[in-house]
Amino acid sequence: MSEVQFGSIVASFPCQVQWGDCDPAGIIFYPTYFRWMDAACWALFAGVGYTAKRMRAEHLAMPLVSADCQFLYPAEQGDRCEVRSRILRFGGKSFVVAHEVQREDGMALAKGEETRVWGKFANGPGTRLRGLALPEELTALFRAA
Amino acid sequence: MSEVQFGSIVASFPCQVQWGDCDPAGIIFYPTYFRWMDAACWALFAGVGYTAKRMRAEHLAMPLVSADCQFLYPAEQGDRCEVRSRILRFGGKSFVVAHEVQREDGMALAKGEETRVWGKFANGPGTRLRGLALPEELTALFRAA
Amino acid sequence: MSEVQFGSIVASFPCQVQWGDCDPAGIIFYPTYFRWMDAACWALFAGVGYTAKRMRAEHLAMPLVSADCQFLYPAEQGDRCEVRSRILRFGGKSFVVAHEVQREDGMALAKGEETRVWGKFANGPGTRLRGLALPEELTALFRAA
Amino acid sequence: MSEVQFGSIVASFPCQVQWGDCDPAGIIFYPTYFRWMDAACWALFAGVGYTAKRMRAEHLAMPLVSADCQFLYPAEQGDRCEVRSRILRFGGKSFVVAHEVQREDGMALAKGEETRVWGKFANGPGTRLRGLALPEELTALFRAA
Repeated sequence: MSEVQFGSIVASFPCQVQWGDCDPAGIIFYPTYFRWMDAACWALFAGVGYTAKRMRAEHLAMPLVSADCQFLYPAEQGDRCEVRSRILRFGGKSFVVAHEVQREDGMALAKGEETRVWGKFANGPGTRLRGLALPEELTALFRAA
Repeated sequence: MSEVQFGSIVASFPCQVQWGDCDPAGIIFYPTYFRWMDAACWALFAGVGYTAKRMRAEHLAMPLVSADCQFLYPAEQGDRCEVRSRILRFGGKSFVVAHEVQREDGMALAKGEETRVWGKFANGPGTRLRGLALPEELTALFRAA
Repeated sequence: MSEVQFGSIVASFPCQVQWGDCDPAGIIFYPTYFRWMDAACWALFAGVGYTAKRMRAEHLAMPLVSADCQFLYPAEQGDRCEVRSRILRFGGKSFVVAHEVQREDGMALAKGEETRVWGKFANGPGTRLRGLALPEELTALFRAA
Repeated sequence: MSEVQFGSIVASFPCQVQWGDCDPAGIIFYPTYFRWMDAACWALFAGVGYTAKRMRAEHLAMPLVSADCQFLYPAEQGDRCEVRSRILRFGGKSFVVAHEVQREDGMALAKGEETRVWGKFANGPGTRLRGLALPEELTALFRAA
C-alpha cells in the first residue's frame, strides 16, 4: 500500500462545550471529543465538495477502523473551541484524519486520530457496506488544495 | 378517529444512570430520560414481536410527533432504574406511549409521553417515510395480552 | 403566583445536525432537540449576563421541572438550524422558556418548552440544590431589553 | 515508575445497542463505545467497593489521559453486548483499563483502552482536581481478587 502524505488542507470545525457535554466533575465528558472529531471529519469532506447530501445521494460512507484521543487540558461549559482537521494519509482503502481541538485562546485541549475506510452501501443506507478503493478524484481534491 | 384504551401490557426497560448521563450539577442531564423513553418504546414493541430486526426487515419505523416529560426527583450516577411503558391509546395512524421512570426503591423519577406515527420507508431506510394505518394485527397484540 | 409576560428578548442559538445526531431512519434522533433546547436556554441567560462562568461562580443552577417538544418536520444531517428562545413567563420560583427550531431556509422543524426553577447549590455543585425566588435583578434584565 | 501487571479481575458490563446509538448507516455511532467503556470502568471500580456513591462522598475522580478503540465488527440496534474490563497496569498516579466489547454470541465488536489518573477534588466537584498517588489499599483490591 503506497501512502501519500497530505497536510495542506486544514478544516476548522467550530464548537462549544455545552452543559450537557460535561460530567459531574464539571468538565467535558470525554466521548464528546469523539462526537466532535466525527463531525469535524464530515466538515472536512464537505469542504472539498463531499457534502452530507452528496454522500447520501451517492450512498457513500466512511466507517471507522479505529480512533484515539489524548486529553490535554480539561474543557469547561461555555468554552468556545475549534477542531482543526486534516488528512494525515491516504492508503488504498483507508485513510487517517488528524484532529486538534483548541480553545479560542489557543489552549490545546485534545488531539486525536481517526482511521476510516471509504465505502459504498450496496443498496442504500442500512444495506451491506462494501469497502472501495479511494477514488483518485477524491484524493486529488486534498492534494490540489 | 376512534380511539381504544389500552393498558394491559406494561413493558419494563432496565437502565442505570451513568457518569456521562449526568451534568455538572451531579444529576441526570434531562435529555437522557428521552433517550431512555425511546429505547423503552422499542423494547415495548419488541416484547410483542416487533423486534428491531423485524422492523428493519419490513422497513417499518415509528417517528415522533411529540414528546414530553415531567422530572419528579433528581437521579444520580449509579441509580438503577426501570422505565415502565404502555400504550396509552392507538389512533388511526398515531399512538401514544406512556412512560414512568422509577428508581429501584420505587421512587418515581420522571414520567412522560411520546406520540408517534406508524410508517414505512418507501424504499429502505433513508428514503421517504409514509404514514401507515396501524395494522390491526399489531394493535391486537396489545389488546390480547 | 403573579406572572409577567415576557417576549422581547429572543436569543438565537445556531446549531447543525451532525451524522451522530441522526438515527437509522436518516433523520435527527429526537432527544437531540432537547440537548439543543438546553444549550439554547443557557445561551439565552448568557446573553443577559448570566454566563456559564458566572452561574458556576455563584453556584446557581436552573434544573428542569418539565419539557416538551413537537416535531414538525424531519431534519437531516447537514441541516443548519437555529433555536430561537425566549422567556414565556416568570413565576415565583419557576419560569418557562419557549424554543423554536428553524432550518436556515425558515422551515420550522420543532418547537418546545422547558419549565425550570431557579436554584442555588448549598455548598457548590453536587451538594443539595435549594429553590430560590427569581431575583428581581434577573427578571428585570429580560423586561428591560 | 514501577508498573505491576494485573489481569485477574474482569468485570462484565452489560449493554445493548439502542436505536439512538446508531447512525444513518444503521450501525452503532462510534462514540457510543467510549460511553460504554467509561461506564464499564466505573462498574469495574464499583465491583471492588469504589462505587459511584463512595467516589462522590470521598471527592474522588479518575479523569482521562487518553483513550483509543478499534472497531472490529459493526453492531446493530438490538444487539446485546457486554464490555469485559480489567486493569492492564497501575503506574504511580495513572492506570490503564483494557476493554473488550463482545456481542452475546461471542462476536468481538470492539476493543480499546483508557488511560486515567487518580485524583481528588480540592473542595468538592467542580473545584480543582489534584492527581493523587494510587492508594495501595485500592491497587491491593485488584491484586487480591
